[in-house]
Amino acid sequence: MRYKPEELTRLPRSVEYERGKVVMIDQRLLPGEFKTVELTTVDGVAEAIVTMRVRGAPAIGATAAFGLALYADTSKAKTKEEFINGFYVAYEGLKNTRPTAINLFWALNRIKDLVEEHFEDPLEEVKRLIVAEAKRIADEDVEANLRMGHYGAEVLPEGNVLTHCNAGSLATVQLGTVGAVLRVMHRDGTLKLLWVDETRPVLQGARLSAWEYHYDGIPLKLITDNMAGFVMQQGKVDAVIVGADRIVANGDFANKIGTYSLAVLAREHGIPFFTVAPLSTVDMSLKSGKEIPIEERRPGEILTCGGCKIAPDVDVYNPAFDVTPHKYLTGIITDQGVVWPPFERNLRKLFRRE
Amino acid sequence: MRYKPEELTRLPRSVEYERGKVVMIDQRLLPGEFKTVELTTVDGVAEAIVTMRVRGAPAIGATAAFGLALYADTSKAKTKEEFINGFYVAYEGLKNTRPTAINLFWALNRIKDLVEEHFEDPLEEVKRLIVAEAKRIADEDVEANLRMGHYGAEVLPEGNVLTHCNAGSLATVQLGTVGAVLRVMHRDGTLKLLWVDETRPVLQGARLSAWEYHYDGIPLKLITDNMAGFVMQQGKVDAVIVGADRIVANGDFANKIGTYSLAVLAREHGIPFFTVAPLSTVDMSLKSGKEIPIEERRPGEILTCGGCKIAPDVDVYNPAFDVTPHKYLTGIITDQGVVWPPFERNLRKLFRRE
Repeated sequence: MRYKPEELTRLPRSVEYERGKVVMIDQRLLPGEFKTVELTTVDGVAEAIVTMRVRGAPAIGATAAFGLALYADTSKAKTKEEFINGFYVAYEGLKNTRPTAINLFWALNRIKDLVEEHFEDPLEEVKRLIVAEAKRIADEDVEANLRMGHYGAEVLPEGNVLTHCNAGSLATVQLGTVGAVLRVMHRDGTLKLLWVDETRPVLQGARLSAWEYHYDGIPLKLITDNMAGFVMQQGKVDAVIVGADRIVANGDFANKIGTYSLAVLAREHGIPFFTVAPLSTVDMSLKSGKEIPIEERRPGEILTCGGCKIAPDVDVYNPAFDVTPHKYLTGIITDQGVVWPPFERNLRKLFRRE
Repeated sequence: MRYKPEELTRLPRSVEYERGKVVMIDQRLLPGEFKTVELTTVDGVAEAIVTMRVRGAPAIGATAAFGLALYADTSKAKTKEEFINGFYVAYEGLKNTRPTAINLFWALNRIKDLVEEHFEDPLEEVKRLIVAEAKRIADEDVEANLRMGHYGAEVLPEGNVLTHCNAGSLATVQLGTVGAVLRVMHRDGTLKLLWVDETRPVLQGARLSAWEYHYDGIPLKLITDNMAGFVMQQGKVDAVIVGADRIVANGDFANKIGTYSLAVLAREHGIPFFTVAPLSTVDMSLKSGKEIPIEERRPGEILTCGGCKIAPDVDVYNPAFDVTPHKYLTGIITDQGVVWPPFERNLRKLFRRE
């Protein structure tokens, strides 16, 4: 890796653990206010996940792990049995915060499994293991992002890049997936201009991506989602990169609504189109994108914008994600390297190698 | 024409003239409040155009014409010379309201030319001519829309239609261009569901189209602009129709930003894509869409949404329109019939016939 995280961003980690407290950027205040909050109870951590002070699957996973570390450091249990009982209560409380967050379950179960392996160890040792594992989960996320950043910057063309939603530092522990690629390119001097889609309905592009990339000094222009095609038509976009919520065995992938439209537009203009995600995002149990269920969100997201009512009370359709067929995809940038077509064969290879 | 306007809409005309007053729907209050205002001075009419109580090129044209009718009916001039001097003052005041509104100049000049032809006529006769001509301009707009509605409904497939922005009753004197087609289809029972794009940044879809089509009982669903591709991918769109700000000799056309993206997406999914506009929108002096200048609007439109601040103060790009090349266009629905490819030849034919 040519760069360290601190050479790529001025942003602190979205979530960190210090003995007895979880420190996180309160994302609900962005972009108006950049402020960290300190949480000293497991309930407080759970509430921060529920109320979306923290968002983005990797950031949520690390936050939940830190919630268990906080339990370990602050538990007043006098016996190991009492400690373990309390651990399961904390585990369940954190698990029930966001019912569909895969990384959340993954991080919590990783620590639970460790605890269960070490049932026989002394209490202080179990506590130490929990805290160390939580920190490792966060560190691994940053390292994976750093690898994606370097792999991605090698394959993206020099010039203007367009992105959608926020797969940046704020969605992860630090740097981001897409965010790491953009930051390495910026550091290398190959990122001329970043086009940021505002990403209706929840505006992660306008509120979070525009804020964090501007904070790191990346030259950018914010546009509404419906301007992307026109910007491409004018020859002002050299590559598109987006995150992925789930990638399946043939390379089809689900991501924030609007991604599919961008993919079609990119192909129409001969513009390379990449997704960036750790290999853990790939679900080899699903054969094609048709098997990915699409979550519908509440109508209020469409009828309002940034808190303002913008439409009469009519029927709406509000799919949170869409599925982009792999034929539109130039490559998948993972923490294990870039996967090129044919995706089905090359993803299988990568999983065998692991 | 199979239907009369009152069989197609419950909406009154956006702007009407009654002796001594201009009555208009105050569009700034929509969708929250549906209210008409009465204007009794030429300055009041000019101000209503400036402050966008009325919008849409045909509606603005008729409003300006009514401004001159109001002058004619309320002028206290004692001599014809005095009346004509005051007429030019009113003409200039209305003309300076919106510097790029073609229909505004066209309507005002049509009345000015008439006045200049009738310089020798008695004062009362000149006044009568002005009022009659202003009413004729408004009536002709409704008739043209009615024709477009019937022509369009004949060629659009039965099923679900997607539209962008507002080319509805509120953008014209009544019915709309796209609006007339949708209303005839609805009346015929061939419009199953209308997909309404919200149309960022100014939200004409969410604020105006969703409101007016819902008001007329058309079943619809409002979506954000970035959802259109996904809805098409799911096979839920059978045709796309949009308005046009300017159509040039080869069939390329300028319309609200986001139209071009829809055109590309429609073609990718094999969905017919139509624009609807009176023949007066066709500018045969420009050969291709490359010659159409694209107006950029103020950054505030991107940084806010419906009045709420949604983004940090970063650079933005805010083109008001985009240009859709004719190769994406299935047909142009005009008040003189539907124009099919090859557009260059068939538009020329239509202009010769006229």
